[in-house]
This record gives sequence, C-alpha cells and structure tokens, in this order.
Amino acid sequence: MLSFENDYAEGAHPKILQAFLETNLKQQPGYGEDDYCRSAREKIRAACKCPDADIFFLMGGTQTNLVVLDGLLSGTEGVVAVETGHVSAHEAGAIEYTGHKVLTLPAHDGKMDAGELKAMLRAFYADPTQTHMVYPGAVYISHPTEFGTLYAKAELEALHETCAEYRIPLFLDGARLGYGLMSLETDVTLPDIAALCDAFSIGGTKVGALCGEAAVFPRHGAPRRFFTHVKQHGALAAKGRLLGVQFDTLFTDNLYFEISRRAIDMAETLKQGFRERGYPFYIDSPTNQQFVILENEEMKNLEHNVRFSFWCRYDEKHSVVRFAASWATTEEMIGRLMGLLSRKKQENPKKVEEEE
Amino acid sequence: MLSFENDYAEGAHPKILQAFLETNLKQQPGYGEDDYCRSAREKIRAACKCPDADIFFLMGGTQTNLVVLDGLLSGTEGVVAVETGHVSAHEAGAIEYTGHKVLTLPAHDGKMDAGELKAMLRAFYADPTQTHMVYPGAVYISHPTEFGTLYAKAELEALHETCAEYRIPLFLDGARLGYGLMSLETDVTLPDIAALCDAFSIGGTKVGALCGEAAVFPRHGAPRRFFTHVKQHGALAAKGRLLGVQFDTLFTDNLYFEISRRAIDMAETLKQGFRERGYPFYIDSPTNQQFVILENEEMKNLEHNVRFSFWCRYDEKHSVVRFAASWATTEEMIGRLMGLLSRKKQENPKKVEEEE
Amino acid sequence: MLSFENDYAEGAHPKILQAFLETNLKQQPGYGEDDYCRSAREKIRAACKCPDADIFFLMGGTQTNLVVLDGLLSGTEGVVAVETGHVSAHEAGAIEYTGHKVLTLPAHDGKMDAGELKAMLRAFYADPTQTHMVYPGAVYISHPTEFGTLYAKAELEALHETCAEYRIPLFLDGARLGYGLMSLETDVTLPDIAALCDAFSIGGTKVGALCGEAAVFPRHGAPRRFFTHVKQHGALAAKGRLLGVQFDTLFTDNLYFEISRRAIDMAETLKQGFRERGYPFYIDSPTNQQFVILENEEMKNLEHNVRFSFWCRYDEKHSVVRFAASWATTEEMIGRLMGLLSRKKQENPKKVEEEE
Amino acid sequence: MLSFENDYAEGAHPKILQAFLETNLKQQPGYGEDDYCRSAREKIRAACKCPDADIFFLMGGTQTNLVVLDGLLSGTEGVVAVETGHVSAHEAGAIEYTGHKVLTLPAHDGKMDAGELKAMLRAFYADPTQTHMVYPGAVYISHPTEFGTLYAKAELEALHETCAEYRIPLFLDGARLGYGLMSLETDVTLPDIAALCDAFSIGGTKVGALCGEAAVFPRHGAPRRFFTHVKQHGALAAKGRLLGVQFDTLFTDNLYFEISRRAIDMAETLKQGFRERGYPFYIDSPTNQQFVILENEEMKNLEHNVRFSFWCRYDEKHSVVRFAASWATTEEMIGRLMGLLSRKKQENPKKVEEEE
Repeated sequence: MLSFENDYAEGAHPKILQAFLETNLKQQPGYGEDDYCRSAREKIRAACKCPDADIFFLMGGTQTNLVVLDGLLSGTEGVVAVETGHVSAHEAGAIEYTGHKVLTLPAHDGKMDAGELKAMLRAFYADPTQTHMVYPGAVYISHPTEFGTLYAKAELEALHETCAEYRIPLFLDGARLGYGLMSLETDVTLPDIAALCDAFSIGGTKVGALCGEAAVFPRHGAPRRFFTHVKQHGALAAKGRLLGVQFDTLFTDNLYFEISRRAIDMAETLKQGFRERGYPFYIDSPTNQQFVILENEEMKNLEHNVRFSFWCRYDEKHSVVRFAASWATTEEMIGRLMGLLSRKKQENPKKVEEEE
Repeated sequence: MLSFENDYAEGAHPKILQAFLETNLKQQPGYGEDDYCRSAREKIRAACKCPDADIFFLMGGTQTNLVVLDGLLSGTEGVVAVETGHVSAHEAGAIEYTGHKVLTLPAHDGKMDAGELKAMLRAFYADPTQTHMVYPGAVYISHPTEFGTLYAKAELEALHETCAEYRIPLFLDGARLGYGLMSLETDVTLPDIAALCDAFSIGGTKVGALCGEAAVFPRHGAPRRFFTHVKQHGALAAKGRLLGVQFDTLFTDNLYFEISRRAIDMAETLKQGFRERGYPFYIDSPTNQQFVILENEEMKNLEHNVRFSFWCRYDEKHSVVRFAASWATTEEMIGRLMGLLSRKKQENPKKVEEEE
Repeated sequence: MLSFENDYAEGAHPKILQAFLETNLKQQPGYGEDDYCRSAREKIRAACKCPDADIFFLMGGTQTNLVVLDGLLSGTEGVVAVETGHVSAHEAGAIEYTGHKVLTLPAHDGKMDAGELKAMLRAFYADPTQTHMVYPGAVYISHPTEFGTLYAKAELEALHETCAEYRIPLFLDGARLGYGLMSLETDVTLPDIAALCDAFSIGGTKVGALCGEAAVFPRHGAPRRFFTHVKQHGALAAKGRLLGVQFDTLFTDNLYFEISRRAIDMAETLKQGFRERGYPFYIDSPTNQQFVILENEEMKNLEHNVRFSFWCRYDEKHSVVRFAASWATTEEMIGRLMGLLSRKKQENPKKVEEEE
Repeated sequence: MLSFENDYAEGAHPKILQAFLETNLKQQPGYGEDDYCRSAREKIRAACKCPDADIFFLMGGTQTNLVVLDGLLSGTEGVVAVETGHVSAHEAGAIEYTGHKVLTLPAHDGKMDAGELKAMLRAFYADPTQTHMVYPGAVYISHPTEFGTLYAKAELEALHETCAEYRIPLFLDGARLGYGLMSLETDVTLPDIAALCDAFSIGGTKVGALCGEAAVFPRHGAPRRFFTHVKQHGALAAKGRLLGVQFDTLFTDNLYFEISRRAIDMAETLKQGFRERGYPFYIDSPTNQQFVILENEEMKNLEHNVRFSFWCRYDEKHSVVRFAASWATTEEMIGRLMGLLSRKKQENPKKVEEEE
C-alpha cells in the first residue's frame, strides 16, 4: 500500500543506521555523557550560531513539549498557545498533567498573531483580578505549524519583541523544523530561530531519525537542574548514545537539511500534481504536508490503494485530507498516486480554462 | 579503556541492528500499531504463556515504573517498595511527581520480605487513623534487585499471596529481567513471573536493545485508557516500530535469553576470577552484576585502566565496586581485567590456604 | 462607605453567631464526625429529598470545585465548562493544578447549551484520534452562573440527559445556590437539582455563613475514599464543627432560604430603582447580582461613596458594573445609593415614555 | 463524657466569639485585604520582632504545610523531615500530591538531630549520582513535635546553621506553637523562632481558634506570587475576615499566650496527678499533651467515662494513651479524671517507695 499518511512511516535515514553499525561496540557512558551526544551538541551549536547553547536530547515530541514547558513555567503560570497548537489539542492533556493551564488564542492558519498576544498580555496585566488567574508564563508556537504553515521572520520578530517586553520565554516546537527551514517560501534560518526564541526543539522523529528531539536553550537558559528534571519526568535515556549518534549524524554534512529539502521537493511535486489536476487546497502549505480537498467519494476510493490522513470535514460532499512527504518519498510513489486520481492531467490547462 | 561499568555501555545486539536494516523502508502506522509491535506482543505472550496479556512498549526504565505505577494507583494510594528500590532512591522523585508516595520497607539484600509486607498491611488496616494516611495501593519489587539478587519462587509466591489477600497489585520491575531468568541459581521462569505478578516489565535497554521496556499486564489488566495515559506522560513513541522491531527480534529464536545467558556466563567467569584471587564479595550475586570489595588503593590504581562503578564505602580502607557483564563482554576483556589485579592467581590455592 | 461590592462583605448571619455561642463548650470529635455535621447532613438530605446523599463540608468555593472534580475525574479526563465558568477563568489554574484540563464551550449569558455539549461529545467520540486527546470526564456548570443567570429546569434536564447518555457526571457549582432557588423567575427546586445532578455544592460563604460549602453526592456517589482525598488536598477541617454548626443552622427553619430570599428582594429593589431611572442592564439577572451599564464618568463619581465591582468595559464611554445584594443589604442602603445616582426618578415615567 | 481526646474538642475561646459579634456588620473586602487581617499581621510582626514579615492566613494545618512547602520547593526538590513528622506520616500524602518527596531522617522523641541532617546533606552532595536523586530543598520540623517535645534553642540554632550552610530553608510547623512557647521547660521565644526559621506557622485551630494558621515568612521571603499560589491550592478564604478577626484577637493583649499558658498549667496538673499515682510516662512531654502508659484493662474501663487518644501499643499488657489539655480544660475535669483512676494517691509516696 502506497502511504502518504505521515512523515514517520519509515524507519531512519540510511546514514543513521550506518552510524549505529559503526559505533555499536564503542563503550560509552550513559545518560547523555557519551561522545556522540557531545559531538552532536557542538554541531548543533555551530548550526545555530549559539556557542553557549544548552542542549538536551529527548525521545519524542509531546515529551519534549511537556518537559521543556514544565521547566520554563513556575507553579502559578500557564503557557499561551493557539487553539490548534499541539499542546492545546493533541497531547492528551500532557501540559495540564504537569499542573499548567494552556491559555489559548485564536489560530490563523495555525499561527499566533503577535498583536493578539500583546493584547492578551496587556489585558491580563491591566486586570485588577489577575492574582486570581493563571499567569501567562511562556508562549508556545510551532514552526511549521500543525497546518504546515510557517511564520515569516517579521512575524517571529514581533512575537519575540512581545515576549521580551513581558519577559516571558518564547518556545518554538520544531517537531518538523527541517521542513520549515528548507521550505522554498521561508525567510527564516536556524540562527534566526536561535536568536528569536528562548527555547526551541529540533525534531528528529519526523525528519529522518528513529526517535529523538533536541531541546535547545540558545543562550545558556536551561532551567535549573534540568538534567534531574528530565529524569524525574521519565525522559532520560540510559543509552544516551541512541540519541547522540542520530543527531550527530543528522548534523554532519548537512544531512538534516538534505533530508528536509528532499521532502520539500517531493511535497512541491505533489502540490503541482494536485494543482495541475484542478484539486483545490484547504491551506496553502509551503512545507511537507499538503492539505487537499477531495470529494468524499474519491476519498473513499483512494483509501483502497493509498494511506493518507483524514484532516477534517469540508462540507457535505468534501473532506480535507493530508498528504505528507518525507525523505523516503519517491517520484515513483507520487506518479502512482497521480495515476489513481480521478481528475486527469489536462494537456493544455490554460486553454481548457479559457473554454470554461 | 576496558569497561565493566554497566550493562548499557555498548549499542545494540547486532541482530537488532540487522533487523532495523531489513525493515527500514517498510511503511508502517505509528504509535505501536505497526506489524513489528504486533508480532512482538504475540511472541511475548507466548513466552509468558499469557495469551490475554496487554503489552505496551515504553522507552526507559524510570518511565516504565512511573507510567505503570501511576496507572495502577488511585489518587489516595502509594506504592510499597524497599528502601533500596529503584523507585525509592534513584528516580529523582518520579513517582512523587505523579502524586504518589513511596512507602518503604527494609531491604534484605535488596529484597522485600513477604512477612514484613504482610505485617505492614495488617498494621495499616488495623490503624483507626488510616483514613488520614496514604493507602498502600501497589507493591513494587525489582528482579534482579538493585544488588543483583533474586527472589526465589517461594518468595515471589509469598508476596503474591499477600498482595492477593489485600487485593493490591504486585508490580515487578524487570529492567534486567533476562539476567534473573538465566541465572544459574534461579528457580523462577518467565511464566512464573507472569502468573505471580499483576504487572511487570521486560527490560530491553540493559539487555541488548538500544532502548525499550515492555510493560506486561498478564491477565488483560492494563489500567483503563492506558494508551492515552502513556501519551499524557510523554511516553508514546510516534515511531513505535523502533520498539517493535527490537522486541520482535529479542523474542525471536530466544535471543533475549541468549543475550542474558551470555552475560551470566561472563559474570560467572568474573566471579570465579575474583574468587580465585581471594577477593571478598559484598553480596553473593547470582546475576550479571558482581559486587567486589577492593582496597581503596587498588581501586584507584585500577581506575586508570578499567571503568567500573563505585558502589559504596565498605570501611576505612575498602570500597565496594560493581563489575557488570553484558552480551558484549568477552573472555578476553575479563582476562585483561584479571591481569590488572594486584592479587594473583595462586597455583595451588588449597595448599596455600592450608598453610595460612 | 456604602458597599454593594459583593455578597461576602459582612460576617455571618446573626443566627449562626448565636449557634456558635450556644454550642461552644460542647466537646466534639473532629474531622466532620461531630453532632452538628451529622445533624446538618440529615437536614440537607431532607431538603434535597435524597436520603442516601453523601455530604462533605469543605471550606471554600474554589477548594470545593477542585476537590470534587479531582475526585470525579480519572487521570486522562478533563472537565467540560463554559469559557466564563469559574473553573475556567477565575481559579488560578486550580483544576489544572490537579492535572486535569478544562475543556471549554461557548457561554450564553454564562450558561452551557445542552445541544452544544452534545455536539462536542458526539464529535469527540466520532474522532478516530480521540485516544490522543483529553477525555471529557465530567461537566461543570454554575447555578446561578457568574453572570447571575439561571438554568431553566428544562435546560438542566437537557444537560442531565446528555451527561447520562455519555455516562459522565454533571457537577453543579452552587456557590450562590440559594439565590438561584429563591429567584422570582426560577422553576428549579433543590430536589430538582439533586435529581438532575451527580454532584453539586451548596454555598455557604456567599449566603450568610462565615465560610463553608456542602459538597453533595445525591445518590451515594462520593468518589472512593473521598475523606482521605479531602485530607490529601488540605481541605479537611480539624474542627469540623465550624462547618457543621453553620450548615445545621442554615438548614434549620429554612434559614438558608430566608437569607437568600432577603437578598433577592433587595436585588429586585435595586433593579427596580435602576430601571425606573432609565439605566440599561448588561444582562437581565434574576438573582442577587445586578449588572448595570454606567457612563464612565458617573462610575468614577460613584466610587467616592459606594463600593461595587467593575465588571467589564462596555464601550468607549460606558462600563458594566456589578451591584450585589446579600442578607445584610437594607432598603436604607439602597435608598442612599439611589440618592447618589445622577439620573433621577421620573415622576410619570410612562407618560414621559409616551412623549418620546 | 469527659474529654481529654485532643486540644480541638471545643469551639473557640470566648473572646474570639465576642470579636465575631462586634465586627459582624462591618463591611470589608475579601481575600485577606480586610482591616482585621491587616491589624493581625501588624501584631504578629510585632510579636515576632519581624517588621518585614510576609504573613498569610490559611485554614488548617495540613493545608499550611502543603501550601508553604510547595511554595518553597522547586520541582526537583523534596523536603527533609523525621519519620514521625506530620508531613511524613499523617497527611494522606499531601506533600507527594504536590509532587514532592518527603526525605526522612530518624526521629529522636519526635525531633530531628542537626548532626544527622548535616551528615545527610553532606552525603547527598558528595554522591556523584545525586543528579538522579531528589534534591533536599527544605527542612521541616514541628515544634512542639507530634510527641509534645520541644527543641532547645541550641538545637534550633544547630538546625538553622546547617540549613544556612546548605542554603535550604528551615520550615517550622507550629500547629501547637503556643504550647511550646509557654512550656515551663523551654528557652525558645517567638522572636527566636522568627530569627532561626525561614518560614513557620502559628497554629490557631489547636490553640483556641475555630480554624486558622498564620504562615509567616519572617524576612520578606514569601515565595513569588504566593497569593495566587494559595488560591490555586484552594486555600484562599473569600471572607478573609474569618481568619483576620481570630488572629487579631489572639494577638491582642497576649491572648494567644494566655490560652497556651492555661493549657500548660492544666497539663502540668495532669502530669502531677498521674505521677503522684505512680503512672509511668512514655515520653517526658513539657507541653499540653501527656503520654501515659496504662494497663490495657484500665484503659478499657476508663473509656466508658473519658475520651482520650490511643497512641500506640506499649507491650502485651500496656498501651500508651494521650491526654491533651486546652484552654477549656478545668481543674474540675482533671479532678474527675483522677477520681476514675484505679491507682490512688499515696499519702507518703516517698516512704512507700522506700519500702519497695
């Protein structure tokens, strides 16, 4: 079965498996003190242009969000996120489990508006009953968002300024960060993110690793005793090398960016294919996830041969479905998908349009 | 540097890496629904003789303890463990972080005494002020213990009976379970454990895997909505195949037991070597960890060439150190270690002893 | 200074103080086992027509909400409430502190719509990714709401039916319950509430007591070991008599209802006074809190002589302010307030209206 | 029935009820901003000789312990207490509920030994695996202890020095503080406690109030946003005057100390009565709780006419029981108790002893 269901359907990029083979018998200390973790940290610091960054390797995305945010927030604080943010909606209450409220703002194609954030913070601090309420203690954004969209650099700067004004940290969930950085339509670089955020994650699981996220505090800002905090949350890997080897490989010879670029290329091919066939898009996504509107009937037919994600109902007769590309997506797979679509490529699309 | 520091100093058993290579491009669903997790569950059910077991694959040992115990315990309950139990002492308060007290009993070479457990439970329920106290809601034991010791089957049966009498679940932390099962001095089998415990873990990380523990509820007893509970605790792997492939391999052709047996053989060789040289042991460990008493001076000298774990101070002049064997330990390594010891093998030890 | 700031500005109803004096030297056991708590429970059971009700006396409103909801919810569950519900907005994250998410619905004059609740629950259980989300585990409503509004009996029945259909408990926060029951515009009685809710509170603090809320589980439904749960949350009064004496007095000779009725009468007088003077209302409140729209300038002038609550900004030139009546409000106080208003009573309002 | 069961069997000291009557109709703001709370804070600051103290009024003892300690401790920290400390044993896991471990030391007549504390802290910081463990983040002691015993000033100084050396706050649970301060055998004053502790409570519930504890941070040291923290834990009283009036009364004209002294006098009379009759004591308590060893048969007979607390089994034939005195205990009550005892007063006890 052809699958565009998500970007974690395969194992790991072959270079990562190769690195496991090569390092396997080298004895190393545990808990992130191994040579590979050390090397990976140095390479990430260089890629971020943050020589003082504190970097911790964790296992998964929800884990990273909850461990980092519970570290950044004090007891009376909650985290501000948009309603569609992963921490708001799809983490089974992991943030609340750590005792913190998720304070929500409206989402705009999955993004937070700096003006709305500022208005919320201003209103909060103007409210004389604020001491009976949850303090906004950090801001959570995802980049790319859950809808595959991206913040422009100016948007990130505006969020950064607002957070700085109110002295609350800005945390960027980069579970799919590579796809954001390699998008054809972005003006945001990794050093930009490191400069504008107080903490961010570099996702491995969905960008070619078997597992793993790097939690980066760019300017030495890891919460106090963060190692013990990680352990307490059940997030410390005994064989830290599992994560070290992967991130060391991903940040060698730009592999992380190559993997991401490959997925972007495939997503662009997907996008072009759907567009040429006249399929409308739910959101104009510049990253590796494409949200296409299908007739329900075609969706059901397609399900016999292709795996994709149902995203939401569009109207009576249509649904939004997500097609995701990864490093392992091939042009051949896309060709087969296109062959299965009911609407066919039009020889002279412009001409046809004129006729309509 | 020669290392006997622990049993997780290397990567994974080669067969596991081989399995990663072979399965890498097969597209699979996430979150434990992949073919490898399914297959691994079936093989573990067969090995445990528990066709109805609920099995979840988690990332690490502390995580497994906290996720399982927080699932088994209700809000007003704590877990009973011995003072040296991993959950009591070495998990950075992970159990308390989930809101539960660890109620302690004395440790006897790392083990809980069923009679003492029974006395504690009887005293608790006889206490008219019990409603002002934490209810004992589960019992935690480790097997092998933190001291490498093992419960005899009769001891496990006694703990099982006491737990059954008071209707509280018995949870066995099997982070190093394989070494317990393959010990030359045990009468406990995996089906015994499945029959006598209400929940237990089968450790992968310290028995040849890169990561991973299987949480087993032998008689369909997983806490309600355990999947969501796992997610909420940040313990759900998106690429569940990472764990599925490893456990499927470990439970194919008895690899888990072979790995464990190999480590036991090496540990026995270590033990014999130290014994022949007249070194005293702190505890008579029948598993892969050996606790030897060294003179402080020799310990310091040895540290230049060998990695091992300082365990505790023995007296003014002596320390207890731990030497751990794993699947990757070789006779050659042991030979080199023996060559570095100050006490030398005596040709006719019996004769010498007579002379003393 | 004249105060209509809230309904807890005075001490306790004189009959309660009298009861403290009369019972003061009678030695009693602690922790809710005293004669007064027992008697109060019986009287509340009778008033609710629930002979099997489990009743616990707690100290305050936020405490009651968090203790009851944390008892009703299991680990993976959250509570559904409207956005303006007290647990959503004004309890400093107390619910999240216990590990549970507040899942919000829109508020309609402070009320939850049963249809919207049903749609939310239906959508949740129809969502194949529900296992990655917080389960709706209880429904929270307040009656009167934070806006002084009331559910009609039919509305409560609809909520009850939806909760029953999805087998989740309905919890009614009755911090100001008396004012709801004694409103001139309600068709809901205390036995109705007991019949339609799975748990509810009867507020004392804001209805004439010094402190105290009764948490009622009408059909023996207190969560297991609720006494210990209360203790664990720091909510158990050693001198339970403090609460017992108060509730025993409140439920003797209908005092609770008399106190409430008195406040309603005063609120109606307030309402009539504002209405006669042509002041518009923000919400048509049938209970003891009246929400009046004032010009900002008048609001500021009034603040020199009267205490009231600023509620929210209405527009550039107007604000919404709350005037609350209690058992201690007098007609004389209202007369003085009316004398301070800038708009004056019109001799023949009807005539004037005709002229307009 | 005659009761010496505890020191909270009656209501409040009559002067407190009188103060409720006198202040009842004075309108006041809520949440601790009333005139009485302000006045009480000033009087307590004066009594402690701490003009900068932050003072919060809470409802009960367990609540105060959990709210203060959860405020003082950071996420990876636990509190050090003796095994018999109230937070260790009798608070239903309230501390663990807030996520913190209670790290225990042996109790010596209910007291912590500064040398043992120092040894524990030294060992912790010397342990290279400390980052895998719970950090000692505060020290909890009770004064009087759960056994009615008292720290000498030198003992408090030693604890203070050790805490200061390791920079962790010392918290003193003064649920029965008055009895400690008025003991005939103490050299510790309230200003001493304020000087030597970083936080402490002044118990009202067990010293003549209906409820209430004052949490004192003597040198402006309240944890950040402590008001909101209190609210979040459900510990904020809407009618703060309930607590303000009581503490204002208790700290007017030395009432708190008079109440305490009265109980000490009665306890001394009790002690003398038992001693003269030859009853042995379990502990030599200098405060208002006396621990007497009774034959089981006499204990059972006495139970028909007197309420007291069974403390623990002494041996086959004897039990330890607790008799508590309070402000409401009278000489007449003690006389009646003595009349019920089986051993009678001996005219010439010394002579008799000589004969033995």
